[in-house]
Amino acid sequence: MTQNSANIAPIEVTHQPRQVILIIGDGMDEQQLTIARNYLKGSQGKLRLDHLPFRASMQILTTEDRQNGKPVYVADSANTATSMATGVITSRGRISTRAGSDTTIATIVELAVAGGLRTGLVTTSSITDATPASFITHINFRLCENPDAMVDVNYKGIALGDCSEYLKANGGGGSIAEQLADSPVDVLLGGGEKHFTPIAEAETISVKALAERNGFEVITRKDELASASQDKRLLGVFAQSTLPVRLRGEDGREAEEPEPSLLNYIHPYLGDVTLPAPMVCEANPDFANMPSLQQMTNIALDRLSRNNNKGFFLMIESASIDKQSHERKPCGSIGEVEQLDEALQSALAFAETHPRTLILVTADHSQAAQLIPDESLFAAYPISTYTPGYVARIVTPEGSHMAINYATSNFMMEEHTGAAVPLLANSEGIGRIPTFVQQPQIFGIIREYLGI
Amino acid sequence: MTQNSANIAPIEVTHQPRQVILIIGDGMDEQQLTIARNYLKGSQGKLRLDHLPFRASMQILTTEDRQNGKPVYVADSANTATSMATGVITSRGRISTRAGSDTTIATIVELAVAGGLRTGLVTTSSITDATPASFITHINFRLCENPDAMVDVNYKGIALGDCSEYLKANGGGGSIAEQLADSPVDVLLGGGEKHFTPIAEAETISVKALAERNGFEVITRKDELASASQDKRLLGVFAQSTLPVRLRGEDGREAEEPEPSLLNYIHPYLGDVTLPAPMVCEANPDFANMPSLQQMTNIALDRLSRNNNKGFFLMIESASIDKQSHERKPCGSIGEVEQLDEALQSALAFAETHPRTLILVTADHSQAAQLIPDESLFAAYPISTYTPGYVARIVTPEGSHMAINYATSNFMMEEHTGAAVPLLANSEGIGRIPTFVQQPQIFGIIREYLGI
Repeated sequence: MTQNSANIAPIEVTHQPRQVILIIGDGMDEQQLTIARNYLKGSQGKLRLDHLPFRASMQILTTEDRQNGKPVYVADSANTATSMATGVITSRGRISTRAGSDTTIATIVELAVAGGLRTGLVTTSSITDATPASFITHINFRLCENPDAMVDVNYKGIALGDCSEYLKANGGGGSIAEQLADSPVDVLLGGGEKHFTPIAEAETISVKALAERNGFEVITRKDELASASQDKRLLGVFAQSTLPVRLRGEDGREAEEPEPSLLNYIHPYLGDVTLPAPMVCEANPDFANMPSLQQMTNIALDRLSRNNNKGFFLMIESASIDKQSHERKPCGSIGEVEQLDEALQSALAFAETHPRTLILVTADHSQAAQLIPDESLFAAYPISTYTPGYVARIVTPEGSHMAINYATSNFMMEEHTGAAVPLLANSEGIGRIPTFVQQPQIFGIIREYLGI
Repeated sequence: MTQNSANIAPIEVTHQPRQVILIIGDGMDEQQLTIARNYLKGSQGKLRLDHLPFRASMQILTTEDRQNGKPVYVADSANTATSMATGVITSRGRISTRAGSDTTIATIVELAVAGGLRTGLVTTSSITDATPASFITHINFRLCENPDAMVDVNYKGIALGDCSEYLKANGGGGSIAEQLADSPVDVLLGGGEKHFTPIAEAETISVKALAERNGFEVITRKDELASASQDKRLLGVFAQSTLPVRLRGEDGREAEEPEPSLLNYIHPYLGDVTLPAPMVCEANPDFANMPSLQQMTNIALDRLSRNNNKGFFLMIESASIDKQSHERKPCGSIGEVEQLDEALQSALAFAETHPRTLILVTADHSQAAQLIPDESLFAAYPISTYTPGYVARIVTPEGSHMAINYATSNFMMEEHTGAAVPLLANSEGIGRIPTFVQQPQIFGIIREYLGI
């Protein structure tokens, strides 16, 4: 470098605002990414995220629900989001509270607000669901999403949990929806309208009205996104619960069980088996009136960056990669990876004009779906070989059959799995992130980048 | 930089030899790595490979067995090793021959030999198995491993394939073992002695004797490794077939099927289920007389680098991560990840003193094993939830239970899966490898680094 650098701009312009865009694909492990890549771009194609210049692997950490508990090897979305939002390992089901002790843990959103930054949470799930909730609320059980689900939380009489301790009457912050309505977050977009219609604790108004009283404009339709007042904070809830997904199986089909012949029931090496017929993916008609994750992302980026010289933190979640995998619906998961990849496109375009933007793309945990051979590796053997679980055989646009296996549970829902997940970043991540990360480190990486 | 650089050593010393060490964990996907990490180092620990400074994801590509065939989404070790060894996408079962046409494809080992470099192949499988074979031999079907398995290859009467076209009498190179015996490779270490005892085609001597006639010293015992002549090339085969693995389940146990009660057979929401009892991993007594992968690696590195100013290519495979997963033996796979990590340690130590050494660590394809919750995510529901496949519940050294699920097939062997696999590198890989790679690109990366 020349000694005379008087005319050269300094490398670091310290007054430029800094922002972090954390994009979470719920359950988006390497199986899900490969399945989506093969379908959306072809086996030799690339997703946008494949072009990101930094890649790491992220180990997921969970603990028993007691202090100094032993490790638990498979997580849920509550404790994993808590890891990223707070840097603390906790137990399954917990929203930014400590295992065993119920202590609340400061989140990256709270630190950002304290530092004068704007904040936003965008998701395709209910905005009260575990992933967004963990970034700003604190409660011992993720299903305590509204004031009517705080005491004796149950599903058709089956006791699932209790959050009485977090009632406002008991000194807590109330349900997740109430905590969101009372929160300082600038942009909250997703689903979950039904959690905002109950009457707020110790109030005569709904949680929605509480949010409005606290300075939110509350919208419920896609066409209100662009016209919402810039003078108010924004809470958008575009469905009663999770947003409908973009793609579904042909005529709504999902993975199905192979059907053994009578002889095959008697012995697996006799008779034969009928595999589910191949199917294409199709547009889900229920998605028609939904904002896309990219549309919500664009609104959030605009609102968080406009006339802002302090920077922001934005979390964007594609939630139903996981939810559709639980329900054995591979087309649904594929469409939600596509939604994430489009949101990333918007984030990258934003970073083009706002160079001090760290974009992180990651998953919270791995999922059940596996890409298995459509023709078995053992097809030469004259016996039927097939999955003991459920399989969907998808006809891809490049004309091959892609078989997706779901076989972690006989229950109506598949389990999560424990594999480390991908962590990608734009060039701002290079040199700031090791190639192997433990999930709670995400908190420190974001905090350090934002200087909060 | 100062203009006066007379006293500064040139950055590039062009006469330094260059070498590539390609370490392949067969079937070593993110599930296998996480399972092994949790067991060997603890959930908060790190494998040696986790410290490597570069990480990418590698898409696996396979095709139907015809020219211009459609994509196939799940691979085997033959076509994946062919991808890495030749840069060409082929069909399952093929060893460096083209899909549909049987044309042979030049391999990275052949190019290295032509460029005057030394070469070595080290594996815990038979040295004739698909992964090592693809780096130097050419044949249409991977099971044609010896002269007695060239025509009408079958298993208990079940026709699996035919390699008549590759008989020497028909202008081919003969079986894989014969092609290895006739090869210019400097170091071949692994298992598979049984493939070298048959009489070589058109000879009156065994394949082993053919190898000796061609300049190999052939050894079969670990204690011969260090004392073998430096003046001859080395072929070591330390077991009849695959080398015994280091770890096994307690008393030889593997994953087992949950046992439903009679009521649960009637309906899955009735009665209960007995899961397999937890087990520890233990040393496999059959491993006692085996050289470790690290010991074989050390010998290979010494022989390939000694008095060598031209560099070398060395492929090291930990083969039984995959083979043990096919057989639902998680302890076996864990021990083989450990063996790979130790071999990497030797490679890294070598690179310390030989700075122009590119070390790549990767897998050929994904596998069936999944880390699932030991306590179901749905444990609050008063019904039994359990895998439809096989599960092993391993007691880890940190005292938790790690449940490993195998549920891709009802057959006696699990299937491969299709997810992209990890690709890691030492610092020599930085700037030379994108963060997303298609498997055939490995060939070009190695070729360019070696300048061949």
